[in-house]
Amino acid sequence: MPTQYDVTAIGNAIVDVIASADDAFITAEGLNRGSMQLIDAARATELYGRMASGREVSGGSAANTIAGLAALGRSCAFIGQVADDQLGEVFAHDIRASGIRFDTPARGAEPPTARCLILVTPDGQRTMNTFLGASQYLPAAAIDAELIAASAILYLEGYLWDPEEPRAAMRAAIDIAKRAGNKVAFTLSDAFVIDRHGADFRALIEEGAIDILFANDGEVQALMGTADVASAVTALSAKVATLVVTHGADGAEAHSRGEHARVHAEPITRVVDTTGAGDLFAAGFLAGQAEGRSLEHSLTMGAVCAAEVISHYGPRPEADLTALVRARLG
Amino acid sequence: MPTQYDVTAIGNAIVDVIASADDAFITAEGLNRGSMQLIDAARATELYGRMASGREVSGGSAANTIAGLAALGRSCAFIGQVADDQLGEVFAHDIRASGIRFDTPARGAEPPTARCLILVTPDGQRTMNTFLGASQYLPAAAIDAELIAASAILYLEGYLWDPEEPRAAMRAAIDIAKRAGNKVAFTLSDAFVIDRHGADFRALIEEGAIDILFANDGEVQALMGTADVASAVTALSAKVATLVVTHGADGAEAHSRGEHARVHAEPITRVVDTTGAGDLFAAGFLAGQAEGRSLEHSLTMGAVCAAEVISHYGPRPEADLTALVRARLG
Repeated sequence: MPTQYDVTAIGNAIVDVIASADDAFITAEGLNRGSMQLIDAARATELYGRMASGREVSGGSAANTIAGLAALGRSCAFIGQVADDQLGEVFAHDIRASGIRFDTPARGAEPPTARCLILVTPDGQRTMNTFLGASQYLPAAAIDAELIAASAILYLEGYLWDPEEPRAAMRAAIDIAKRAGNKVAFTLSDAFVIDRHGADFRALIEEGAIDILFANDGEVQALMGTADVASAVTALSAKVATLVVTHGADGAEAHSRGEHARVHAEPITRVVDTTGAGDLFAAGFLAGQAEGRSLEHSLTMGAVCAAEVISHYGPRPEADLTALVRARLG
Repeated sequence: MPTQYDVTAIGNAIVDVIASADDAFITAEGLNRGSMQLIDAARATELYGRMASGREVSGGSAANTIAGLAALGRSCAFIGQVADDQLGEVFAHDIRASGIRFDTPARGAEPPTARCLILVTPDGQRTMNTFLGASQYLPAAAIDAELIAASAILYLEGYLWDPEEPRAAMRAAIDIAKRAGNKVAFTLSDAFVIDRHGADFRALIEEGAIDILFANDGEVQALMGTADVASAVTALSAKVATLVVTHGADGAEAHSRGEHARVHAEPITRVVDTTGAGDLFAAGFLAGQAEGRSLEHSLTMGAVCAAEVISHYGPRPEADLTALVRARLG
């Protein structure tokens, strides 16, 4: 059956609050540099009070990926929970303005829409502190079965495995996608998330629920319980149809049914803010796959999209991704 | 009496919503390209619904100037009205995080905090649509007489002349500043504002209420009722102690008690977003004057600050202005 959407994603519906910070601030606040940690409302207020002046932009890992896919011309939908407040309006506006179908109703005013306090150090690295707010209450009822069945790919973020209700909602969505014969793509999101939910992720992989898996070096290590990335990648690639591993500045590789490809990172003048790099890499790769491109071509599309998003503040594309991909790949 | 603050400003407390737009969109929406127009809540919802995905950053003309002054090491305070909502929290956080005293209490939830829908065309020009919300209800009671008396300069924006309550509050503040022997600086803000309030502005100038006046070409023309900028500048310079006129890409000039200086605009690779250019020019000039610099030096500081703010999205400085000024002027 032809599908109506290329990709539907389920993810945290977050507005990012991005501010500059020096390394001393990261240390003084006891943060895991380059990582994501969950914070409660009190900690969010306290940390925000000490942060520099910021900029607010719509974020959320899977939402960023979907925004990238839409910018690359794919038809997309997003499912995620906002509150009935100003940041929720911002999130909903931005995702719809990007041409993405977004129907999840706002949930009332409390708790408020999720925000991620992102501290960007002078090297461009981001350290994320997420107050999940409304996002953690995404109910199973928000999973539109018709929409999932009508989407060639269901895309899920590991971050959303933390809160209980969305985890159940995602499990239900996986079943719907699988019954419809569609593909499930999953990003492992963060090594610390794997520390909390690695057993679940490994079980999903073992049962064949994941067709396309995205991970970076640290996530592969955490998932496979080894510091040896190369052997972990080899072992993992035997368990999923398509495995994409990003190596930061060292490029990325993909394994799919015995095929293998590897690309360098795209050159970039200055890394301003790495927020969204992995999300946009996934967008480029999935768009390439949707176009029927080779693994190498798809990886390069991912690298082009990642390079765009790290060249400015904010986790979603600002330049014309389609034009950038055309300029690079013809 | 030595003053405790270099500058206290009274202005609209606004969060900017900045999105890219093409010229066809500006035309289709019937907007005055490069100008500011006031919109009501219904029009704000309608226009926002058609705008592209945006970024939210604290704005407000005088607030931007104060943020620039604080970045240049001056001690500053700001008076402006936000609502008790998320955008109000963003505004208050950002101005305090910039080291600026801000004590005006939030006003309740309705109307919400002011927002300015800013459309940036490919040439970097901004077209502004302001929903004043809570900002238009700044009460005279918010004017802290001790604070005004303790500030060497009181800085006011013409934009705030539109709503009735803040207009009365500013008149009261001018009287306090004058009685304390402090200076009053005023920016004419926008030619269309002068169409509405030119008589008031001319009366303030005639009565000697304004010591330092900021204007651009269009504002000088509107205020003096002539297309001949040069003769209008000459006539206006006889009425205020210090007159600063910005000429966009053609630089700026200042007249003060018979002295005259003129500078070119600072070179810049690419104009990304002109929002805040005039505000930051005023910041640089006032900081120079506070340091006891010459007219030319002060103008150059203004030009350096304006060049920084137009090189990125958003109306407040992102780079270290003090370092940029030092690199340019020693």
